[in-house]
Amino acid sequence: MSKIRMGMVGGGHGAFIGAVHRIAASIDSQIELVCGAFASSAEKSLASGKALYLPEDRVYPDFQTMFEKEAQLPQDQRMQFVAIVTPNHMHFPVAKAALEAGFHVLSDKPATLNLAEVKKLKKIVKETGLLYGLTHTYSGYPMAKHAQEMIANGEIGQVRKVMVEYIQGWLSEPETEDNKQASWRTDPSRSGISGCMGDIGSHAAHLAEYISGKKITHVCAELSTFVEGRRLDDDGIVLLKMQDGAKGTLQASQISAGEENNLTIRIYGEKAGLEWHQHEPNSLQVKPLTGPMQTLRTGLVDGVKANRGTRTPAGHPEGYLEAFANIYLNFSTAVRDFADGKTIDPQAYDYPSIEDGVRGMALVQSFVDSSASDSKWFELEQLLAD
Amino acid sequence: MSKIRMGMVGGGHGAFIGAVHRIAASIDSQIELVCGAFASSAEKSLASGKALYLPEDRVYPDFQTMFEKEAQLPQDQRMQFVAIVTPNHMHFPVAKAALEAGFHVLSDKPATLNLAEVKKLKKIVKETGLLYGLTHTYSGYPMAKHAQEMIANGEIGQVRKVMVEYIQGWLSEPETEDNKQASWRTDPSRSGISGCMGDIGSHAAHLAEYISGKKITHVCAELSTFVEGRRLDDDGIVLLKMQDGAKGTLQASQISAGEENNLTIRIYGEKAGLEWHQHEPNSLQVKPLTGPMQTLRTGLVDGVKANRGTRTPAGHPEGYLEAFANIYLNFSTAVRDFADGKTIDPQAYDYPSIEDGVRGMALVQSFVDSSASDSKWFELEQLLAD
Amino acid sequence: MSKIRMGMVGGGHGAFIGAVHRIAASIDSQIELVCGAFASSAEKSLASGKALYLPEDRVYPDFQTMFEKEAQLPQDQRMQFVAIVTPNHMHFPVAKAALEAGFHVLSDKPATLNLAEVKKLKKIVKETGLLYGLTHTYSGYPMAKHAQEMIANGEIGQVRKVMVEYIQGWLSEPETEDNKQASWRTDPSRSGISGCMGDIGSHAAHLAEYISGKKITHVCAELSTFVEGRRLDDDGIVLLKMQDGAKGTLQASQISAGEENNLTIRIYGEKAGLEWHQHEPNSLQVKPLTGPMQTLRTGLVDGVKANRGTRTPAGHPEGYLEAFANIYLNFSTAVRDFADGKTIDPQAYDYPSIEDGVRGMALVQSFVDSSASDSKWFELEQLLAD
Amino acid sequence: MSKIRMGMVGGGHGAFIGAVHRIAASIDSQIELVCGAFASSAEKSLASGKALYLPEDRVYPDFQTMFEKEAQLPQDQRMQFVAIVTPNHMHFPVAKAALEAGFHVLSDKPATLNLAEVKKLKKIVKETGLLYGLTHTYSGYPMAKHAQEMIANGEIGQVRKVMVEYIQGWLSEPETEDNKQASWRTDPSRSGISGCMGDIGSHAAHLAEYISGKKITHVCAELSTFVEGRRLDDDGIVLLKMQDGAKGTLQASQISAGEENNLTIRIYGEKAGLEWHQHEPNSLQVKPLTGPMQTLRTGLVDGVKANRGTRTPAGHPEGYLEAFANIYLNFSTAVRDFADGKTIDPQAYDYPSIEDGVRGMALVQSFVDSSASDSKWFELEQLLAD
Repeated sequence: MSKIRMGMVGGGHGAFIGAVHRIAASIDSQIELVCGAFASSAEKSLASGKALYLPEDRVYPDFQTMFEKEAQLPQDQRMQFVAIVTPNHMHFPVAKAALEAGFHVLSDKPATLNLAEVKKLKKIVKETGLLYGLTHTYSGYPMAKHAQEMIANGEIGQVRKVMVEYIQGWLSEPETEDNKQASWRTDPSRSGISGCMGDIGSHAAHLAEYISGKKITHVCAELSTFVEGRRLDDDGIVLLKMQDGAKGTLQASQISAGEENNLTIRIYGEKAGLEWHQHEPNSLQVKPLTGPMQTLRTGLVDGVKANRGTRTPAGHPEGYLEAFANIYLNFSTAVRDFADGKTIDPQAYDYPSIEDGVRGMALVQSFVDSSASDSKWFELEQLLAD
Repeated sequence: MSKIRMGMVGGGHGAFIGAVHRIAASIDSQIELVCGAFASSAEKSLASGKALYLPEDRVYPDFQTMFEKEAQLPQDQRMQFVAIVTPNHMHFPVAKAALEAGFHVLSDKPATLNLAEVKKLKKIVKETGLLYGLTHTYSGYPMAKHAQEMIANGEIGQVRKVMVEYIQGWLSEPETEDNKQASWRTDPSRSGISGCMGDIGSHAAHLAEYISGKKITHVCAELSTFVEGRRLDDDGIVLLKMQDGAKGTLQASQISAGEENNLTIRIYGEKAGLEWHQHEPNSLQVKPLTGPMQTLRTGLVDGVKANRGTRTPAGHPEGYLEAFANIYLNFSTAVRDFADGKTIDPQAYDYPSIEDGVRGMALVQSFVDSSASDSKWFELEQLLAD
Repeated sequence: MSKIRMGMVGGGHGAFIGAVHRIAASIDSQIELVCGAFASSAEKSLASGKALYLPEDRVYPDFQTMFEKEAQLPQDQRMQFVAIVTPNHMHFPVAKAALEAGFHVLSDKPATLNLAEVKKLKKIVKETGLLYGLTHTYSGYPMAKHAQEMIANGEIGQVRKVMVEYIQGWLSEPETEDNKQASWRTDPSRSGISGCMGDIGSHAAHLAEYISGKKITHVCAELSTFVEGRRLDDDGIVLLKMQDGAKGTLQASQISAGEENNLTIRIYGEKAGLEWHQHEPNSLQVKPLTGPMQTLRTGLVDGVKANRGTRTPAGHPEGYLEAFANIYLNFSTAVRDFADGKTIDPQAYDYPSIEDGVRGMALVQSFVDSSASDSKWFELEQLLAD
Repeated sequence: MSKIRMGMVGGGHGAFIGAVHRIAASIDSQIELVCGAFASSAEKSLASGKALYLPEDRVYPDFQTMFEKEAQLPQDQRMQFVAIVTPNHMHFPVAKAALEAGFHVLSDKPATLNLAEVKKLKKIVKETGLLYGLTHTYSGYPMAKHAQEMIANGEIGQVRKVMVEYIQGWLSEPETEDNKQASWRTDPSRSGISGCMGDIGSHAAHLAEYISGKKITHVCAELSTFVEGRRLDDDGIVLLKMQDGAKGTLQASQISAGEENNLTIRIYGEKAGLEWHQHEPNSLQVKPLTGPMQTLRTGLVDGVKANRGTRTPAGHPEGYLEAFANIYLNFSTAVRDFADGKTIDPQAYDYPSIEDGVRGMALVQSFVDSSASDSKWFELEQLLAD
């Protein structure tokens, strides 16, 4: 037995999310980074590879070369899956090429630049039969998983209300050229049809559906661009209708001055309410109809999904990197089992799949379409047809 | 000099809000309860008056008798203003009668049962030239007042976003006959056209406008009745457009299981964000664009309005009753100054006025109308014409 | 039936604690302030009386005159108890004179200037058979009362550990002449043998004994004066032995920069721990050995003592003034029942008594004596003999 | 360039702390686990090595064999340092053997079983000139580091008070045989002369000295064993004198029912107070004498030490594993620089050294000795002579 071998496209020097993916991959000692095409130039790619102590012959000038060469290596040496950590507009071409070359894909979100692309990608995933995962990080937290299990087990009764918000303040002022993060995220050609809603509203939507177990069916959205000259939305507020009569709100913002990465979800059922804050991820508040509020804690619950993603005893806080690592852990377990010939159901392995990717792109599209419309409710169904 | 003399209509035994009004009136030793018509029967009224140590001849069988008899007393003995603490449908007739008999009015909210009534009431207030105040309690908290002053002074820059929510869980199940509070609040004939939005959504709207200094101009509302058989809404979610391009959300609920009286407001400007929670009312969080979050505390700020309503040094928490008392303190100061011949501007005395009453009723109407409509935005202006 | 009639000694203009006592007395409409000797000069006393809307003939130049004249009034007019709100050195002479003139006493703490005085006072209380109460405010909070009841009911099992701390920062710098509060509190002739420990350490000790139900038996104290030139301690740290093998720590400080009025108590038993913070007084955290932490809330527990002192529904925060009012409420109930000929047991009425006064003075003495000693443990018993 | 090569002694299957060390070593992709002697039997060691995907020839039956064989490997293949993660009684013999075989040592704490051993170890470290680090995890948190830098820079003025507490509840009941953790930690032959104070009191003491910059000079301790039949202390409370007139308290407990891993430190200086909680490690509260409390956050401060140990942007919480990783990162940087011929000062590289190890053992000894004494103050100096 050996570690699962991973390649990486993107994520060179200075790319925040590349380092995060590498840490997430390495934490559990189950995955080994064996190769990469880290940057848009061969030179930069090589420099990044060196800093990561990779042998030079496994650092490639571009992803096409990487997939071609890796495919030629002996089976017990070549990479088994590729992590895609490029800007959004490259997600689709890289994923497509990887799958067609026979490699599993674990992609940063969003799955693609737009809804049309993700539908194509879904077909390719199906045709190749390979594994595809999406790093919707926030559903990787143990207490988010536990909330999901509690609701699935009926512990709060029928879900009535979902309130999810993802609030940041870092784009409160016009982005400057030297802020690499800000600049591509507000550029439609690299980021897609939406800024704030695509970047973080989509995380909020995924988390809301993941935990509540209810799909969003209708949206009524108002997207805004508060900073003058910005080309994409920097704020969005949305009313939601969900399956089985549940309703809710989704709010995302990048101009909420002073907020860091404030993702909060509250779900109310007939019997109890749940509240979870990403800023303090190891607590899950349970508020029953009668009786005192209870604070469940990472490491002290008996949920299967939560505990599979918990590495330390209660009171030794785990955070964002461990949540990210949980997606890597679950996906790499699937890769290992796939290699052993097992059939893989992403839900059973508890990682976001191409289906989540399609829903994510459709939701972002629905926010944009609804915001442009004078009608109150926009039905999501119309976007989901193949 | 003597204390300001107050009469009370409603608020007999077992009426939660009557006791709150009496405590609020008595805290600062500026107001004396001198008479009352506390209940719908003469007998019950008398029993309540006795328990309050009032002389029998100042306890009246009904409000008409009270206003008539009190008006006949010498000027230095008769009541100066009446506190109205009846169910909603009685607010208008009692206020009308009091004003017409020459007494100032401090009314529990909502001002009236509906928009038509409040417009009539506004005319009566103007015609009589008497004082009218409304107990929108939550703007009575020192830190809510301080937030208002900070924004008015430009300390957070131009307001962009307002997020206000008022979440309770006590109506998560069908109300029973013996819950007096629940039963009249969900009865349209006594409560008005809306349940949750009228009862607490209106508080949230008032607080949002009070603190932000921006009026709501358009609403997009979705009201729900989650509990089967209930005749009024028990939940409402609203998108807001406000003056000068601000946007926001207003959420109110009485079926959010496990929530007590969770009124929270967050306001984001170009330079900073503010956050205030009624459950911990003595802290106001200020989140600047750069630099650390600051926690301002009751008793440690130098705001005029906040400090006028602060009775203890920092670290000696004040609460709901003191917030309520601040409305009484400010209103009774106006009554005293009115008696001295001064002109009274409610805003300068910092108590909610008939104008706030009109806006409140219009907002509740707008939530109901918007919820019934397929169009996205409902313009408030159309309801405000006299 | 009429309200209980109260007189006041001290508490004139600008005296923080005088206003607090008056608010506490008035909140529940059970007590009427009928007379006072508010200041050390007749002129100032009169001015204060006027501002309180008292008739001139019930405002006295000094406490001796007040007790003499009030005793001559008809029984249904004269004051029934006196509230003592002077600096510490006057507590004993005023209480003595009041009791000897036939009036019940409710005194601000400490009971007297020193241990010798309080022992004399205890004799006078016993001899006169009158009521004596002490305003140890912090045990007036509903959740402190509920913690006391839970422990008395065995809900946390045998008490093992008590951690109490009362931390302020307002004396971090040398006091100036114009800070009236600071100046008398750091003057031994007016404040007593200890500064910080007498002022707030005594509150912490009382709360620890009240809630835990265990008396302190031994102390090991280190008192410090961090600010140069100050004549009394401004900080104290103490190890405790308590009844039945419990141990603990008591910390009090007035030089903990940036702290407001941070009184926190944690008590651990064999089955659970409890935690309560005065800054957020409406929550009581219960931490069982197994199972999640629970947050009990004012208004949502079924404790007799807690609910007797709760005026609003859950989520409408009560604070310091209401805690103070609970002592007035309980004491005035005892005064009323005493007048009806009942026998009064202060514990049953749940107000701090002369016994608590004696313990308080002995504890402060023990802190001072222990701090001056090289031996580790100082036994409290030796100070408690009559 | 290649990764730093690490070996491990102890930390086989089921050993909580072994997995933690491996995660901490792997997070930053700077260290590679190349060999190990993971358990007390060759068979178990091999099983553990296999699960870690190590080649069989680098998994050894015992540490002696490992050091001997590794020393014979070519310099670019053999391990460079050993991580010691055995029970306490093995720390000294393994560290001694490793150093004498020419390997750097990174040891779990405590450094040794007792004070005599650590003094010997210090000599060996000096004689070999090799690097020795100690994993006092909690000083690895960015905000703990930032507090240290703030105080060193004079930002809170002269330190007056230190309040540190490390409170757990997991030993509230008698340990059972099958709780491996509990059983060795309460066995004097494997754990040393103290239970609670050795296990976690020593962490608290290290953190207090690290952040405050003041050494403890005198202690007055009371150790207790609350659980019947337990052979070592399960609770300790200590008064502290520190350098330059600072005073404080140190409290550690394993019988505080319901507490997880509650390590909290508060330090008050002449100008401000600081407060940090391990349970919410990404916030550091700064409480100035005047002006509002500020909340500093990981990722938003400009401290050198803090930022060297921060991997994610603000609002993406880091936790215990990252704090642990910071010690590995700093130590491995020193190992790399040592190999390049640089002189290594542990303080400059910001990892706990053999000096901290000696102080830790002396402090634990002082707690035990002071607790057994009737004198108030025990001077630490007497234990520190070589």
